[in-house]
Amino acid sequence: MIVVMSREATQDQAEKVGTLLRENGLHPVFGAAGSATVLVAEEPGTRELASAVQAAGGVDRVVLPPGPQRLTSRHFLPQDTRVAVAGADGPVIGGRGFVVIAGPCAVENQQQMTTVVDAVVAGGAAMLRGGAFKPRTSPYSFQGLGVAGLALLAEQRSRTGLPVVTEVVTPEDVERVAEESDMLQIGARNMQNFTLLREAGKSGRAVLLKRGMAATVEEWLLAAEYLMHMGNGDVVLCERGIRSYERSTRFTLDLSAVAEAKRLTHLPVVVDPSHGTGRPHLVRPMSLAAAACGADGLLIDVHTDARAALCDGAQALDGAQFADLMEQLKPVVEAVGRTLAQPRSPYLTQV
Amino acid sequence: MIVVMSREATQDQAEKVGTLLRENGLHPVFGAAGSATVLVAEEPGTRELASAVQAAGGVDRVVLPPGPQRLTSRHFLPQDTRVAVAGADGPVIGGRGFVVIAGPCAVENQQQMTTVVDAVVAGGAAMLRGGAFKPRTSPYSFQGLGVAGLALLAEQRSRTGLPVVTEVVTPEDVERVAEESDMLQIGARNMQNFTLLREAGKSGRAVLLKRGMAATVEEWLLAAEYLMHMGNGDVVLCERGIRSYERSTRFTLDLSAVAEAKRLTHLPVVVDPSHGTGRPHLVRPMSLAAAACGADGLLIDVHTDARAALCDGAQALDGAQFADLMEQLKPVVEAVGRTLAQPRSPYLTQV
Amino acid sequence: MIVVMSREATQDQAEKVGTLLRENGLHPVFGAAGSATVLVAEEPGTRELASAVQAAGGVDRVVLPPGPQRLTSRHFLPQDTRVAVAGADGPVIGGRGFVVIAGPCAVENQQQMTTVVDAVVAGGAAMLRGGAFKPRTSPYSFQGLGVAGLALLAEQRSRTGLPVVTEVVTPEDVERVAEESDMLQIGARNMQNFTLLREAGKSGRAVLLKRGMAATVEEWLLAAEYLMHMGNGDVVLCERGIRSYERSTRFTLDLSAVAEAKRLTHLPVVVDPSHGTGRPHLVRPMSLAAAACGADGLLIDVHTDARAALCDGAQALDGAQFADLMEQLKPVVEAVGRTLAQPRSPYLTQV
Amino acid sequence: MIVVMSREATQDQAEKVGTLLRENGLHPVFGAAGSATVLVAEEPGTRELASAVQAAGGVDRVVLPPGPQRLTSRHFLPQDTRVAVAGADGPVIGGRGFVVIAGPCAVENQQQMTTVVDAVVAGGAAMLRGGAFKPRTSPYSFQGLGVAGLALLAEQRSRTGLPVVTEVVTPEDVERVAEESDMLQIGARNMQNFTLLREAGKSGRAVLLKRGMAATVEEWLLAAEYLMHMGNGDVVLCERGIRSYERSTRFTLDLSAVAEAKRLTHLPVVVDPSHGTGRPHLVRPMSLAAAACGADGLLIDVHTDARAALCDGAQALDGAQFADLMEQLKPVVEAVGRTLAQPRSPYLTQV
Repeated sequence: MIVVMSREATQDQAEKVGTLLRENGLHPVFGAAGSATVLVAEEPGTRELASAVQAAGGVDRVVLPPGPQRLTSRHFLPQDTRVAVAGADGPVIGGRGFVVIAGPCAVENQQQMTTVVDAVVAGGAAMLRGGAFKPRTSPYSFQGLGVAGLALLAEQRSRTGLPVVTEVVTPEDVERVAEESDMLQIGARNMQNFTLLREAGKSGRAVLLKRGMAATVEEWLLAAEYLMHMGNGDVVLCERGIRSYERSTRFTLDLSAVAEAKRLTHLPVVVDPSHGTGRPHLVRPMSLAAAACGADGLLIDVHTDARAALCDGAQALDGAQFADLMEQLKPVVEAVGRTLAQPRSPYLTQV
Repeated sequence: MIVVMSREATQDQAEKVGTLLRENGLHPVFGAAGSATVLVAEEPGTRELASAVQAAGGVDRVVLPPGPQRLTSRHFLPQDTRVAVAGADGPVIGGRGFVVIAGPCAVENQQQMTTVVDAVVAGGAAMLRGGAFKPRTSPYSFQGLGVAGLALLAEQRSRTGLPVVTEVVTPEDVERVAEESDMLQIGARNMQNFTLLREAGKSGRAVLLKRGMAATVEEWLLAAEYLMHMGNGDVVLCERGIRSYERSTRFTLDLSAVAEAKRLTHLPVVVDPSHGTGRPHLVRPMSLAAAACGADGLLIDVHTDARAALCDGAQALDGAQFADLMEQLKPVVEAVGRTLAQPRSPYLTQV
Repeated sequence: MIVVMSREATQDQAEKVGTLLRENGLHPVFGAAGSATVLVAEEPGTRELASAVQAAGGVDRVVLPPGPQRLTSRHFLPQDTRVAVAGADGPVIGGRGFVVIAGPCAVENQQQMTTVVDAVVAGGAAMLRGGAFKPRTSPYSFQGLGVAGLALLAEQRSRTGLPVVTEVVTPEDVERVAEESDMLQIGARNMQNFTLLREAGKSGRAVLLKRGMAATVEEWLLAAEYLMHMGNGDVVLCERGIRSYERSTRFTLDLSAVAEAKRLTHLPVVVDPSHGTGRPHLVRPMSLAAAACGADGLLIDVHTDARAALCDGAQALDGAQFADLMEQLKPVVEAVGRTLAQPRSPYLTQV
Repeated sequence: MIVVMSREATQDQAEKVGTLLRENGLHPVFGAAGSATVLVAEEPGTRELASAVQAAGGVDRVVLPPGPQRLTSRHFLPQDTRVAVAGADGPVIGGRGFVVIAGPCAVENQQQMTTVVDAVVAGGAAMLRGGAFKPRTSPYSFQGLGVAGLALLAEQRSRTGLPVVTEVVTPEDVERVAEESDMLQIGARNMQNFTLLREAGKSGRAVLLKRGMAATVEEWLLAAEYLMHMGNGDVVLCERGIRSYERSTRFTLDLSAVAEAKRLTHLPVVVDPSHGTGRPHLVRPMSLAAAACGADGLLIDVHTDARAALCDGAQALDGAQFADLMEQLKPVVEAVGRTLAQPRSPYLTQV
């Protein structure tokens, strides 16, 4: 059973509902849906109890989804959630527009950023990506520029007017990264870093949640539940390939999971074919496939000098390849009844 | 090194080339490319040797692909192979037309066949599918009607004028199945049944080769190599899902493998989203994705009474869902510069 | 419900039982358990029906296993099946003795066979292995010596008095291979080659059934059910590694599956750590682990000149490594209450 | 190239070595090996450079491992590392003694702890386990008692004199958990939580590092490298099952990875068959297998009232099963030349 308190409800009223649920054998957990308090119990409870709860003070509505009792379920929110990344003027993920987010895997230096971002803007991306904090398998690999990288990214954001998404890897950095970007990325390796999820859930920023490389669709949605349950409904799921026995690709991009997630949850789902295949020649076909199967957008690695890239350069598209991708993407996106989201940036007229 | 003998070359000439190769340290295997004899050696050999071989009697051409020395390689045949399934008037897989093959998983009885085939024809399928010999995990499951099923399938073929593809599970049945159908299907469980592959390679019929459920792309292409090497160039690859840890789908449909196979080989590639996901609600999105990423066609399970189906009914579309799929498929196919292959059947005007 | 007819029961009596079951809504399939006819229905049926069937003419016993109605189930035969590979004097797999089967992956020539077999006999193997028919991923790889290889293997069998197991890859070869060996091997790629299973089920020879590289434990047992259901109860299961994402080994040896299979079925289970890991340095530790977790024996690749091996030489042990393995195996086998099966061969005194 | 500075070396001397390496094209990273500073560069560098570095001030030794330049490599430390968990009197993991660590999955309350710990001590465990902070897939599942759980665990530690290992899930808790336990556990979901690894690397406590459920052996060792590189050499690896397609077990316990890790690294490796199989009936056979293949110890879930367990009770052994396991383990451990580590606790004489 899910109980949404009205926005004006008092703490005391919420506690009373909690007591009522517990007296009837349920184990409610307190959370938030936007600015309202919610109580979620895994046990559905009876219709009679639902009526009694509805009648209690301060209750806005009681929801009894047919399946699992979850905030991410389409049974809780039947309509598609639209995540407005940068306020009223920024791109909306989950609506009619198909949002392409592009940029380098890692922020390296100002010149690289300017060159890559120019290429990305020229291609028509609606949003920028770039990693300042990089989780790396080896302690001896380039770990990202950290705070200095955030600043370089923020510079591109103000230069172009495009919103940026960047990864946060540890709870204590959440606040700072939230200040300097428009959207927090939780990476695949941190999908079940629950402390980080809770912190991001309180950040007030939209979150891009990558699927773990061996996470089931259910585990992925439950990770999103951690975010929603902390009051953050601006969650975008991102499929980025799973581990399988196949060795011709770095990961196996699981587009069925995109279609399945879209069925189960109201949250938007985007696809990262760059990390998801690890092969630049597969980025174009898999981007088209992602658009065709119902994804709401893409996350694309672009690098204008892939050989010199400090991180994952081998999988990035160059500027021309990115422009070519965008051109081929347009008719496919339109074939499924959508449009390519246009960047909203005064900078664009200058490129 | 691959040596293609001219069609007029004698056995003796081919033997002499074989000796020449062996004297230079290569280990050639004799095979056929269409009606011509080929010698394929895994060792590339030198350009000097290639020149010497070219000068030998009866040699049409010597090919030195940059990668593995294989008949299925795009380096051996750079152009897309077009498989004309039923002669000049039948559908062509691998050309501009996107070929949808549909029908029941298993042939059950005449009434079922007529009903399902009518639905499939009404939806616009270019070709029929249906299993008479069913490889089943349990000896106690329905094993297919066998010969009687072949006859029921042939009946639909002559009734509608549409070509049929059906599975063959054992070498001794190849000849009979080849007589009564237009295309032999080798199932996922038999992808490495090399005796069956060799027999199908000699059958004179086009072959639909499903990917094994744990086969790498390379193993899949090497299974096709068994067919080509026996002289059968009319091979269509079919992605049908691989085994992974994910449990929300029956298999993980690996569309990256489709794009990767299209890059590596000149052979056409189709996709079976019905078996590949095992979930009817995922068939439509994954069909669109398959078309978008470059597949040459689809294999779709249709059943007009899924609950009564003797085999895999739970994953089949009904007639209305199939018609809906075809309608949504059209713009996506066109968005990638192709057209939906039209069935060529006088029957169609009557439905 | 499983009905075992008495050995003296007539065909007519069995048919009557079949009719009785069908009249009560069951779908029996006719098979054999040793020399007796069995009827197996997937539906359990009621205790009342079981009584009525028991009272019918020619019925030996009616079994109602609590789980799936299968001949391979421990509920059908609670005691461990002991497979006597070569009659009363040969090794018994599934009893107290732990049976080590060793030899080259592929039979290559007489000298290789004599050298390897001498090493294997010196180490104390109870049985020989060697492949004459090799299923190979590429048509250009060495495919085995075929019939000539069988003869070389038979020569070692008569020279040493040790029984041999060898692979059969196609139904039409079953009879010949059964004549020239003591045990048929069905390889991983053929685990679901149901025609081959049925033929092997009628061969009168013990069968070593390797697990498919992406087969679940249940699918593996159902493949064994095909063999038992044709009347062949002398089935030995063999774990040989499954496909996973891990790349430091060729396959992931799944010893949990051995313990789980031993729990579910009365059939013996052996382990092939050579193919299962593809790494010679892992053969010894994984052999000890297999013995400790309850396996009934091992299948070990030995080659005295691994670099010159025509097939999978890289994973084979040499003679000294094999002798070392046998020495370390002994105390582990004894620690779990068993003994290393001693070869029964007059030849041994001469080595 | 790995450069170990002498313990007396100054910061300035280390910086000079760093400069020398950089001038020769290497990219050294500063870390610690115990109390000494190390510089690790992924590039091996030349023997000439090694000599020059050796001659620089404050350098203890220069190591040029043949493979990857890593502190976890057996080429850096050829001898087995022995991790003394609780000082001179506590158990040593990685020596001749085989260390069994047992306890409940989650700390629930005092009575549960006393009952379970008594059973575990009676069975002969050398060390206790129990989770106070539980990373749970769903936000609505029991999340552990947190700080209160730590106190309950510490109570058992002082009551029995046995050391305890417990999980830490977030960097800010490392210090507190290190104070109240003898060994920090990094769970599978956090294996690549690099901030947590770095913090644990500075904690001064031994660390039990579980393998991620889709981590390769190489990634697992690199996670350990994060710990060692921060100066913590007391690292114990723990195999706990990987994700595969097989569904009869919760995970696929990968014992090959244990043998492979033991070959590659000097660090001890233990096995968790409880989480690794998720099936209590498989814990015993897989524990014996783990001991046989070279593991240095086990981590076993025990619960005396599994049905009432708040976390993973279904996979726990009860007291009698644990005692039975210990009895059967003894001869297997001895068969591979080791002994069961005896708990060193005055409490034992009272049980």
